[in-house]
Amino acid sequence: MAGKVYIVGAGPGAADLLTLRAAALLRAATIVLHDDLVPMEILELCPASAQIVNVGKRCGRHSRSQEQINALMVWHARETDAQTIVRLKSGDPAVFGRLGEELDALRRAGVEFEIVPGVTAASAAAASAKITLTDRRVASALVVVTAHNSRNEPLSKTMFGPARPTYAVYMPGPDYAGTVKGLVESGHEPATPCAVVSYAGRADEEVRYLTLADLASVKGIPAPALLIVGEVAAEHPLQRPQDLLSEISSEPYHYDRLPIHPSLG
Amino acid sequence: MAGKVYIVGAGPGAADLLTLRAAALLRAATIVLHDDLVPMEILELCPASAQIVNVGKRCGRHSRSQEQINALMVWHARETDAQTIVRLKSGDPAVFGRLGEELDALRRAGVEFEIVPGVTAASAAAASAKITLTDRRVASALVVVTAHNSRNEPLSKTMFGPARPTYAVYMPGPDYAGTVKGLVESGHEPATPCAVVSYAGRADEEVRYLTLADLASVKGIPAPALLIVGEVAAEHPLQRPQDLLSEISSEPYHYDRLPIHPSLG
Repeated sequence: MAGKVYIVGAGPGAADLLTLRAAALLRAATIVLHDDLVPMEILELCPASAQIVNVGKRCGRHSRSQEQINALMVWHARETDAQTIVRLKSGDPAVFGRLGEELDALRRAGVEFEIVPGVTAASAAAASAKITLTDRRVASALVVVTAHNSRNEPLSKTMFGPARPTYAVYMPGPDYAGTVKGLVESGHEPATPCAVVSYAGRADEEVRYLTLADLASVKGIPAPALLIVGEVAAEHPLQRPQDLLSEISSEPYHYDRLPIHPSLG
Repeated sequence: MAGKVYIVGAGPGAADLLTLRAAALLRAATIVLHDDLVPMEILELCPASAQIVNVGKRCGRHSRSQEQINALMVWHARETDAQTIVRLKSGDPAVFGRLGEELDALRRAGVEFEIVPGVTAASAAAASAKITLTDRRVASALVVVTAHNSRNEPLSKTMFGPARPTYAVYMPGPDYAGTVKGLVESGHEPATPCAVVSYAGRADEEVRYLTLADLASVKGIPAPALLIVGEVAAEHPLQRPQDLLSEISSEPYHYDRLPIHPSLG
């Protein structure tokens, strides 16, 4: 049987800011491919039998390319007996973690995978600084950028360059038509791909992939939901509203899930 | 002895996406003031002796105002025997959680507090949708907005209105002068307050509060660091670079921390 890859967020670097789900996966891991910044206490959760490989790209020493990391994941899943392959990334995998390239490689190879979100560095930094990131009085939005990018572009170009930001819209419903109107008025094309996720991370989570234009007419999206808008949402074949209508009345779309951590039982 | 308030992120709603630190705090809680969206399995971590209060503002039933929630936290910390007061918020407290108002109330009352970050809904939704939020090929930044705001403004006004977004800059160093230049070229005033956080969430975390202009000349900020730029960072008295230079050679600034979760020992 082929193995499954779990792309797991390790959080910002404190061992106890790991999630219970990530801890349970590390305890069950056959192989762990981890970044440099992941602390030793977290790796100590793995069973003694687990193979642990630092695939970090920092530190100046001989390091693996992104292509080599992709190939390692695929090889372990397809060519070895490894059942639970954990790709452990610092922070949250979806934020400046080169996740897109790793997902492309896994999809191309037909490898089964699941993503486990983590505490991202912005949240951890705000907690440490004892401040909020958004504030309805003084800061209605949060812009997440990086000062280091693959093209060595200046930060001002990153923020306003041709690679549009992804938009994460909290509380997008129930007036999805109004939300779409606001996004289009702000310069988004109606054909922009998006994903709307209800009950994210729960066993009964529901995910819909569509365009902004189609989102305006979809009914019956359960709350709480979150809307992700941008090219990153184009990885899946888009669904048309009529597909969604039939889907809503049938089994919702969800993933295999490890059982809840025993301490929560 | 006065109690301490822990403002804790419960994550997106799956019990096993709670952090180990949050779970340890709930097991030690005297009183828990929680939002509506926090699932029952998480509350079941609390000891039988703990007082658990739903202070949720949704659901249309008789609910508490933000001022009442603020007053409850302060009252439990100052006027009762409660030692560990957990204010449990869904997702990450710093993202659309009215954290700013709760921090103001605690600061005004002189109540000791600490923030425990959580997995924010955007990270959980991206994991559920099996997509990334940033991608060096197609999405160089992430904009986090909400379709529901206190002024009932349309989304297009939220994104570009007078309340500037907060900027979270990942990997801001070591060329802080270059990072500041990029932010100023993008329209930030040199006097904009900011916080730079090294080792966020760890026992040896270091936080510096200053202005963009002063940040350009500060040396010796350890990596990994994260930079938060905007009015939200103005909650603390700003430090001048000369303060920071003397501080770097002395004890770094950090907080009390609960011991690491026993399962990690």
